Amino acid sequence: MRVAVIRKAHFNAAHRLHNPAWDEARNREVFGLCNNPNGHGHNYELEVKVVGEVDPETGMVLDLGWLANLIRYEVEQRFDHKHLNLDTEEFRTLNPTAENIAIVIWRILRAHLPERLDLYVRLYETPRNFVEYPA
Amino acid sequence: MRVAVIRKAHFNAAHRLHNPAWDEARNREVFGLCNNPNGHGHNYELEVKVVGEVDPETGMVLDLGWLANLIRYEVEQRFDHKHLNLDTEEFRTLNPTAENIAIVIWRILRAHLPERLDLYVRLYETPRNFVEYPA
Amino acid sequence: MRVAVIRKAHFNAAHRLHNPAWDEARNREVFGLCNNPNGHGHNYELEVKVVGEVDPETGMVLDLGWLANLIRYEVEQRFDHKHLNLDTEEFRTLNPTAENIAIVIWRILRAHLPERLDLYVRLYETPRNFVEYPA
Amino acid sequence: MRVAVIRKAHFNAAHRLHNPAWDEARNREVFGLCNNPNGHGHNYELEVKVVGEVDPETGMVLDLGWLANLIRYEVEQRFDHKHLNLDTEEFRTLNPTAENIAIVIWRILRAHLPERLDLYVRLYETPRNFVEYPA
Amino acid sequence: MRVAVIRKAHFNAAHRLHNPAWDEARNREVFGLCNNPNGHGHNYELEVKVVGEVDPETGMVLDLGWLANLIRYEVEQRFDHKHLNLDTEEFRTLNPTAENIAIVIWRILRAHLPERLDLYVRLYETPRNFVEYPA
Amino acid sequence: MRVAVIRKAHFNAAHRLHNPAWDEARNREVFGLCNNPNGHGHNYELEVKVVGEVDPETGMVLDLGWLANLIRYEVEQRFDHKHLNLDTEEFRTLNPTAENIAIVIWRILRAHLPERLDLYVRLYETPRNFVEYPA
Repeated sequence: MRVAVIRKAHFNAAHRLHNPAWDEARNREVFGLCNNPNGHGHNYELEVKVVGEVDPETGMVLDLGWLANLIRYEVEQRFDHKHLNLDTEEFRTLNPTAENIAIVIWRILRAHLPERLDLYVRLYETPRNFVEYPA
Repeated sequence: MRVAVIRKAHFNAAHRLHNPAWDEARNREVFGLCNNPNGHGHNYELEVKVVGEVDPETGMVLDLGWLANLIRYEVEQRFDHKHLNLDTEEFRTLNPTAENIAIVIWRILRAHLPERLDLYVRLYETPRNFVEYPA
Repeated sequence: MRVAVIRKAHFNAAHRLHNPAWDEARNREVFGLCNNPNGHGHNYELEVKVVGEVDPETGMVLDLGWLANLIRYEVEQRFDHKHLNLDTEEFRTLNPTAENIAIVIWRILRAHLPERLDLYVRLYETPRNFVEYPA
Repeated sequence: MRVAVIRKAHFNAAHRLHNPAWDEARNREVFGLCNNPNGHGHNYELEVKVVGEVDPETGMVLDLGWLANLIRYEVEQRFDHKHLNLDTEEFRTLNPTAENIAIVIWRILRAHLPERLDLYVRLYETPRNFVEYPA
Repeated sequence: MRVAVIRKAHFNAAHRLHNPAWDEARNREVFGLCNNPNGHGHNYELEVKVVGEVDPETGMVLDLGWLANLIRYEVEQRFDHKHLNLDTEEFRTLNPTAENIAIVIWRILRAHLPERLDLYVRLYETPRNFVEYPA
Repeated sequence: MRVAVIRKAHFNAAHRLHNPAWDEARNREVFGLCNNPNGHGHNYELEVKVVGEVDPETGMVLDLGWLANLIRYEVEQRFDHKHLNLDTEEFRTLNPTAENIAIVIWRILRAHLPERLDLYVRLYETPRNFVEYPA
């Protein structure tokens, strides 16, 4: 009787793809327009999937209000209306690709979830590009 | 050569989250606004996923028209434009959380599907909250 | 330089279409499944459109945060997770069709907007049915 | 026989809402999180609506491929993957609110369209906030 | 108290853009890939907007079930799963551009609507291209 | 650290479901309207999912621009604005059901992907019907 519960959230942020170990030409070659020095931005749409047994007393896997608040305080307040490279600890040295952002969000949320629950993160960078972690 | 075929459907229903074994205060604490005595409602969007081998003669896993009719008669006609707690046998004593509704729909459909086909149900309670069973 | 600014919001509610001046048969004939005595429900998606001149100092027609709060306190808190016929003053005697709900919301919001701004409301009852007021 | 033809496009950009004539406190008060010094960003979704008579020989209002290219070269290449305030001439001194961006795009496109065609622009800053010009 | 009521519908059809008065080269130049001799196809999404006074007895502009059936019998059954150029009377000699399809649908529906109601048609040829008639 | 990266694409095509080994009556019985001799069509929406390790230097699973180009040249240019049965080698004898189209696209793309990457294809024939391969 394991059920997956998915909650959507979103945050709007600027970012720049860049590897400081590379020179400018290599960065431009690999990251293209995403390497623009002043950054660009996205409406990130986030889906947080939590898998667990249904509690027979509540009929729910977990309290969805609690999950929504967890996402609000731990993800949205951290990243919303920020420049990820310049304004956040997480991406000061880590390249804020969609892959890395998803992994970072997974780790942040994982630390707050009871062990009985499995966690998956899907992150839309645009309506046409998105990532899932773990795959 | 196993392929998943997904068909979307929908039904509009009222429901109330409530555990009769608890007192009013406990119900309100756990279920919040969803415990409103007169109920509230949703446009439930349903995705039924059926997995099986592709029949080499038809090029299809199953007859999608047959599946659409099965969903219409067994799910939509049962739940559409109903108050789930008051108008349906399935939720007269079972709390109609999204988790429980998904499990109930899975069991209804499972009973009509050939054994060679696997079945998964995704149910959107709102565009922002949804569940999957089995996970 | 008049620009329209649109803000989306949503609320989940139960309702029943019913005219108490008619007998049961007439109600069933006109409103069909929507006349179900215990009600059914929807995820109402609301678009509030405000039209006005762009303020040259702010570059904005109005403060979108103010508008979002107005919608939250005057519309969402009033109707979200309610049975419109049983739990709200507005629809105790007024039939909660999508048309009437849109007109009621327009009147509520109109009373709070400065005269210099025009107001339009679009209300989705389902993703397939929606209304606009004024037309 | 006037028909409206609408073409969607998109660009991803960073921006910062800011009025240099105001002090920091006033900027923060009016623009809130959108005043973040390093900027934030959006997936801007653009709808370009062109209204005109249907040409009886082609059955079309205008060549949609020509319109798509016009949008690509005049709007997408100008704003996509840019920081609007720092990387574009248009918003070096003009506050890049959704209202102002829509007006700027309208002016750019208007200059390239034959007089017989009317032009309207809708710009989604997020899936929940959008503007239309002219209203 | 005029309200607009919008109903969505859809049909899947093949079509070919072609003007028999032109030679092959001219057709290819104007219509590009859409001139492919064997045709291509679309999931046409249709929005039918009807504007009128709200009936105080029903709270509705018109019976939405009646409108849904009108669209089903007059539009969907006529065009769904057809090759528009080869299988329908309407487009045997008329070029099935989105503009022309919208005008044809408007005329078909207009003939069945009471005079007190205004009618508007929006037709999505793809999620990125759509037309509105009248504009 | 395996992450899934998903890229959306689309193509518009006509097709006809038909098994030449069957007589007309059997084809009509099994494929219904989809057996219409002149074909019908769809806006196919494609999601290509690639799973692999995140490269620590780029922070990415693979170069998304490379993937987008691969899809453009190998899938879109092959199938877009075509009649699948009449204009493509792949479906001259293979019935172009959604299941078969997904399998064909998977094989085409698989041949171009490095072995370290897993590949999954989701194909929407309509917004209401879609398939996934492998399941």
